[in-house]
Amino acid sequence: MNIDYIVPNDWSIIEDGFNKEDVTSSESLFSIGNGAMGQRANFEEKYSGETFQGSYIGGIYYPDKTRVGWWKNGYPEYFAKVLNAPNWIGIGVKVNGEELDLNACKVSDFRRELNMKEGWLSRTFKATMSDREEIQVTSIRFLSLDINEVGAIKYSVKALNFDGEVEFTPYLDGGIVNEDSNYDEFFWKIKDIQEGDNDAVILSETLKTEFGVATGMKVDFQLNDDEVSFDKTILKEDKSISYQYKTRVNKGDTISMIKFGGYCQSMNHPKEKLIECSQKTLQKAFDLGFDTLLEMQKKSWAKVWETADIIIEGDVKAQQAIRFNIFQLNQTYSGENSRLNIGPKGFTGEKYGGSTYWDTEAYCIPFYMSTKDKDVARNLLKYRHNQLGKAIENAEKLGFKNGAALYPMVTMNGEECHNEWEITFEEIHRNGAMIYAIYNYVNYTDDYSYIPEYGMEVMIAVARFWHQRATWSEDKNKYVILGVTGPNEYENNINNNFYTNYLAKWCIEYAVENLSKLKDEYADDFARIMSLTKLSDSEMESWMKVADNMYFPYSEKHEVYLQQDGFLDKEIIPVSQLPKSERPINQKWSWDRILRSCYIKQADVLQGFYMFEDRFDKKTIEKHFDFYEPITVHESSLSPCIHSILAVSIDRMPKAYEQYLRTSRLDLDDYNHEVHEGLHITSMAGTWMSIVQGFGGMRNFDGKLSFNPQIPAEWTSYSFKINFRGSTLKVYKSQTECKFINESDKDVEIYLGDEKIIVSSNKLVQV
Amino acid sequence: MNIDYIVPNDWSIIEDGFNKEDVTSSESLFSIGNGAMGQRANFEEKYSGETFQGSYIGGIYYPDKTRVGWWKNGYPEYFAKVLNAPNWIGIGVKVNGEELDLNACKVSDFRRELNMKEGWLSRTFKATMSDREEIQVTSIRFLSLDINEVGAIKYSVKALNFDGEVEFTPYLDGGIVNEDSNYDEFFWKIKDIQEGDNDAVILSETLKTEFGVATGMKVDFQLNDDEVSFDKTILKEDKSISYQYKTRVNKGDTISMIKFGGYCQSMNHPKEKLIECSQKTLQKAFDLGFDTLLEMQKKSWAKVWETADIIIEGDVKAQQAIRFNIFQLNQTYSGENSRLNIGPKGFTGEKYGGSTYWDTEAYCIPFYMSTKDKDVARNLLKYRHNQLGKAIENAEKLGFKNGAALYPMVTMNGEECHNEWEITFEEIHRNGAMIYAIYNYVNYTDDYSYIPEYGMEVMIAVARFWHQRATWSEDKNKYVILGVTGPNEYENNINNNFYTNYLAKWCIEYAVENLSKLKDEYADDFARIMSLTKLSDSEMESWMKVADNMYFPYSEKHEVYLQQDGFLDKEIIPVSQLPKSERPINQKWSWDRILRSCYIKQADVLQGFYMFEDRFDKKTIEKHFDFYEPITVHESSLSPCIHSILAVSIDRMPKAYEQYLRTSRLDLDDYNHEVHEGLHITSMAGTWMSIVQGFGGMRNFDGKLSFNPQIPAEWTSYSFKINFRGSTLKVYKSQTECKFINESDKDVEIYLGDEKIIVSSNKLVQV
Repeated sequence: MNIDYIVPNDWSIIEDGFNKEDVTSSESLFSIGNGAMGQRANFEEKYSGETFQGSYIGGIYYPDKTRVGWWKNGYPEYFAKVLNAPNWIGIGVKVNGEELDLNACKVSDFRRELNMKEGWLSRTFKATMSDREEIQVTSIRFLSLDINEVGAIKYSVKALNFDGEVEFTPYLDGGIVNEDSNYDEFFWKIKDIQEGDNDAVILSETLKTEFGVATGMKVDFQLNDDEVSFDKTILKEDKSISYQYKTRVNKGDTISMIKFGGYCQSMNHPKEKLIECSQKTLQKAFDLGFDTLLEMQKKSWAKVWETADIIIEGDVKAQQAIRFNIFQLNQTYSGENSRLNIGPKGFTGEKYGGSTYWDTEAYCIPFYMSTKDKDVARNLLKYRHNQLGKAIENAEKLGFKNGAALYPMVTMNGEECHNEWEITFEEIHRNGAMIYAIYNYVNYTDDYSYIPEYGMEVMIAVARFWHQRATWSEDKNKYVILGVTGPNEYENNINNNFYTNYLAKWCIEYAVENLSKLKDEYADDFARIMSLTKLSDSEMESWMKVADNMYFPYSEKHEVYLQQDGFLDKEIIPVSQLPKSERPINQKWSWDRILRSCYIKQADVLQGFYMFEDRFDKKTIEKHFDFYEPITVHESSLSPCIHSILAVSIDRMPKAYEQYLRTSRLDLDDYNHEVHEGLHITSMAGTWMSIVQGFGGMRNFDGKLSFNPQIPAEWTSYSFKINFRGSTLKVYKSQTECKFINESDKDVEIYLGDEKIIVSSNKLVQV
Repeated sequence: MNIDYIVPNDWSIIEDGFNKEDVTSSESLFSIGNGAMGQRANFEEKYSGETFQGSYIGGIYYPDKTRVGWWKNGYPEYFAKVLNAPNWIGIGVKVNGEELDLNACKVSDFRRELNMKEGWLSRTFKATMSDREEIQVTSIRFLSLDINEVGAIKYSVKALNFDGEVEFTPYLDGGIVNEDSNYDEFFWKIKDIQEGDNDAVILSETLKTEFGVATGMKVDFQLNDDEVSFDKTILKEDKSISYQYKTRVNKGDTISMIKFGGYCQSMNHPKEKLIECSQKTLQKAFDLGFDTLLEMQKKSWAKVWETADIIIEGDVKAQQAIRFNIFQLNQTYSGENSRLNIGPKGFTGEKYGGSTYWDTEAYCIPFYMSTKDKDVARNLLKYRHNQLGKAIENAEKLGFKNGAALYPMVTMNGEECHNEWEITFEEIHRNGAMIYAIYNYVNYTDDYSYIPEYGMEVMIAVARFWHQRATWSEDKNKYVILGVTGPNEYENNINNNFYTNYLAKWCIEYAVENLSKLKDEYADDFARIMSLTKLSDSEMESWMKVADNMYFPYSEKHEVYLQQDGFLDKEIIPVSQLPKSERPINQKWSWDRILRSCYIKQADVLQGFYMFEDRFDKKTIEKHFDFYEPITVHESSLSPCIHSILAVSIDRMPKAYEQYLRTSRLDLDDYNHEVHEGLHITSMAGTWMSIVQGFGGMRNFDGKLSFNPQIPAEWTSYSFKINFRGSTLKVYKSQTECKFINESDKDVEIYLGDEKIIVSSNKLVQV
């Protein structure tokens, strides 16, 4: 835990008091987003202290050139960067000619609140200017869920001890830069700046990718809650436009500016209509008015929480944390657009450049599937189907043939844009996660239609990849998969990673199983797909030869599958024996030392046991947990959740709770000293999983929904809801009780161990 | 073979006729150097076509920032770049106001010659200007071996068909750039520009490294071989200075400019004296005059050839090639300065950035040892002793303790400056090459004094490294070395590379053996070293535990040591079955595919058999050769020589000759499509080895000098000389004869197989 200034609260993230050194951390923690865009909690007014300015638009990126491994054949030429977009929130504020700057003036009664229940960010403070004018400032800001190209700010200044002049200078600024740029290049070209009455638009375009973006603003004023208007002075520069409004105020007056702003972009509109689109959208928001738009916002968030909320009683920090995780996931991806996805930092920072990792399939799908309509998860699956062509091209670049596909490690548009060979070329297990997500989706939603419509093509291309990627070992008399990196990225270029080999075998078997089902039950689709993919029975037979003869490294002595060949050559020393001063090893040890050590970054063999838990008995899982967990350093935010879930399933509640704590307040308490760079969005889904699948014990193997609710000793109770095949099931667990409440009109069949229970529509079952 | 325009000639490299597309290749091939500086064969006059300008000063580099793997702990912060230095050769030439530019005017009778016997470069051609003036141009250029801070040019223009004006504008230009720069930065700062009578100096300093360099010129004129002088106009700019000289010529007149130039640098002189030093040095050259300096040059090169020459009869291309290799090695390193070393591209290009690789120890030492005074090899060894402190620091950065040293993969000043983890952190076998070079030196020269004086300290630090780097494998009940890259860089992060493990064991044993010898025979040195290094008997015992229990991967089935653990999991398909279209695999295959293939870039297990040939019987070497050579792609210039040498020793002359051809004309025929980037200097030593150790069968294990001369069917005869412990032995082999000629006053004892032969002083022995 590296920060502890966030005030515990059930529904809000709160900062009381102003500390300059917390500004960049708070900018991350108080980030707001609406799925289409998002921004760090930068101040509207000038701030001359340390700050990390960021406003991001879903799907807009820049291919920054790379200098890594460029001589290695097949290397991507660029590393896609999440792009900092033009600033529309800016409002210069002057009091009697002096600029308001929290880094320069005296600040008191500072309070920042991110209200997660209602989806808005506010800031209140008193500031004393150098000539002793005191003002009270209140700002409220939100990005509308209802009109997702619009955000709104109400910025109020009250003159506490003076009569004088207040000046507002709202502006748009296209001259922004990226923190994370390899060559300090400018990524945007300004095409047009249009001024209007109280509105303006900057039309800009990204270099190379040529995304068009119209950034707009429209402003309005209130004096003590009455509409007023003022004359303005226009300041137009190369890359920015500002309007200067001055007014006299008397002591006690409150002057408020309402500023609507946001982006219209070329993924959603024709380029030549972007300016018009921006103007119309802002007019629409303006006509509704700030208060109405805010009311709509509250209702929309209430609807999100209706299914997504998790209630924890008896531990306010745990309550705050889980809601924070759920809130941020919803701010990042709303599920309506199958061209968007979930970046590891969402709209809260620039690190990790690209937008989509296997995190989506392995960690985020379960969350969205259970808390939203099934179309949201379906859109995430379709995102990969849309990019199948690029995945085939990507595999071709690496020498694969015949329509084999390798999905990229990191991508914006389907092309690989990560640039370390040991990841890009070798961390191929990601290809299996694509198929597992389909399996998971069909199992959970019972919407088999996805497979004949889209999924089968992806499965065939991935099966072809595994078939070609495996090679025959004379020595082992088995198929082997050489030169991979598993989920544990603290090993590179290893042979026969258990997880990868297992997933490869499973992908082939699952593809063949579904082809057989399609042949019997979806003859037309089957014929179409066979013809499209030119798949033959003999090709399938050769796939199965690989699957049937796949090699898995195993130790008879330890009775465990080995993470990879030769794993037992390592010195096995539990993490508990590592001096604290040497951790985290990724900051203290050289890379080669990490590689040859036994230490595991995140679940690897255990990731496989988590995903295919139904295929192993409890004793086997226990044996593997006891072998691997003690040498796991959990230096990926994706690690603790999997271990927490498995720990519950083998009755290790203290271990499970310890791991849960590491994941749930990772950002709020800044465990890794890096929250200023942005939030760990994708791993937040893991926190949700830790409660629902971990403590709640929810599983849905073989289409059955099962539970095994446990509760940490530290909590009074918890409850969560899931959306399951059209019904809403609430699960409540306290230290003494366990209840299942069906809040829908459809019966739900659940299992507790082997016991089948019907939870009838709108009924409660106590167990 | 990609070019074939070089005219075969015993002693010269010749280009007849002007082809624009060959300019950059010829700039590499005709490079000149004198050990202290060197330059590509750029034209003196303007050339507007494609050209790669390069002039380099030994030891002057720039730490270019790197963006590779920067998040991995222990990474070097920079990649040292060989620096293109200010241009002093430039001479603008105008005829009746029109600039001479071979890219623009008509050129005929173009001939370029690099005379290797005498050490000069010449160019002659006729040019027709657009207004029909015809001129005959002759330029001769050399970098003096005698005054190694000076070069000289005689540039003559004869008016063939006109009376008119000729203008010479000799200049110095400090505004040069590097081709190989990561961020297109300028690497030099101009500190001062001083003009003189007919001389000028630019004082500049490298950014960051702050090397000071005074680049000077001094000019003189001749009209039809008589001294003349002219008035000049001075053109001084920010980073350059030129003098413009105009004169009238009559038809038939030859006007010549003599330009002396060169560098004085701060590694050799105090910074504040550099300008003065440059002026004095140029004055000295000027006083000697061009012709005298050239005569001295011819004598100095004759002296080099006296021992270094290899004569091949019956194959002019082979003769030309071996002399080219010997010439370039001598141009690159003259052996006087233990702060300098041998860069893989010498002074002929910028690629591979840093200056010193393990190539020096593994490939270059034998050449310099046999063809020069032993002090030259001693200086190369001392270079590493000088850098021992940095090697210890380097190991500390990677977590090693107690004075363990890891020599860098690439360096300028002892610090690591390569930047790929799989090389920098893992290609640690280089550490063994440092010790092998000492062993080789002592064996050959019998100069044991190097060990007590310098070598022992290096051996102790390296033994400490191996002791710590090896870890105990419970599973194998042996010490293992995990996570390495062997000489075959087409494998990364492998376990138990045979070559590395073998070398590690040997390094420890050799250190202990020498410590014991020192204890008995050099008690004072022993005491000093033990105290300096705080070495104890118990520490040595723990080293020996590792050496005695080192693991070597071995296949009972194939009866060969395996390149690494798991090697037999690969699909073993001989290179001969690879389609031509897929080679070279480093240009045709993606990196991961190369890694998981069986293909070997350069000798790896066989490098070990080459170095420790005395420890294995012929049958064993044969078995390993037959297992590994067929899957070796020889995509490193360092590969064919080792295979050629081993092939001779197992009586495979056709194979040996095939491999010899790949190495000897690698650059002259541009086998790898890259000669325009510079020459492969270090591998040229391998070509020399292929004749002396390969066909000549020279060995010197256990202090014995032995031979086994064989001759390729394609040659009439060959002969070479070696400098062996103060005597000069010439070896002559023809299809029918074999002679050993002792050209010194000291008897030499040699072995032919088990037969001992004394070659008495100044006597010939025919065998």
